[in-house]
Amino acid sequence: MAKPIKSILKKNLSFKVNGSLWLECGGKKYFGPGPMELLEKIAESGSITKAARQMGMSYQKACQIISRLNKHAAFPLVESQVGGKKGGGSLISPAAQELMNYHYKLRKQFLSFLEKQTWLIS
Amino acid sequence: MAKPIKSILKKNLSFKVNGSLWLECGGKKYFGPGPMELLEKIAESGSITKAARQMGMSYQKACQIISRLNKHAAFPLVESQVGGKKGGGSLISPAAQELMNYHYKLRKQFLSFLEKQTWLIS
Repeated sequence: MAKPIKSILKKNLSFKVNGSLWLECGGKKYFGPGPMELLEKIAESGSITKAARQMGMSYQKACQIISRLNKHAAFPLVESQVGGKKGGGSLISPAAQELMNYHYKLRKQFLSFLEKQTWLIS
Repeated sequence: MAKPIKSILKKNLSFKVNGSLWLECGGKKYFGPGPMELLEKIAESGSITKAARQMGMSYQKACQIISRLNKHAAFPLVESQVGGKKGGGSLISPAAQELMNYHYKLRKQFLSFLEKQTWLIS
């Protein structure tokens, strides 16, 4: 008879099941929490430069991530505008919004899975 | 109406939902794939030194991991034997076996979650 896991762990401590989730392509991480945050910050700020700065990464690094995202997507995910009234900037595309919506839903289901697993050990 | 995620991703590429899972204590990783592999290798080899070598880590690092595992567990997880016919060695305890069994079950459920999510996007 298997002992319940909580009898193995110290009683005065609080344990939690946690994890990380991402979309892979060809065995490599494609879309996870990092690119998700970058798209969110571009959507908020309207600028790759500002988004990168907020995340403590270089503009070049942010462009590399966007380039990789675009490479595997059927539509461009970030659209840059040159000039105009506000002097240019970057917008996320409707396809990027769909990808983000998908990730929100996936994360919600994952959180529910993690909560259930944490409940089972507490 | 939300577009299905597969219409956003390139059709000729194969995507997969993947992730990582661990047990946390006080907001810090406690037991995940690394400690799991270490316990498995100690169980197989009967030796912390051999297990550490197989994982490309130092003996000291392996001992640190074991010490942290023991710290939060109600029972010692690795038992070292000095001397004897075989000149000592290390064994995993029944409590460690229970922790491993728990992790196998958790991983199985997680894999089933990931497969379902991958199926939904393919």
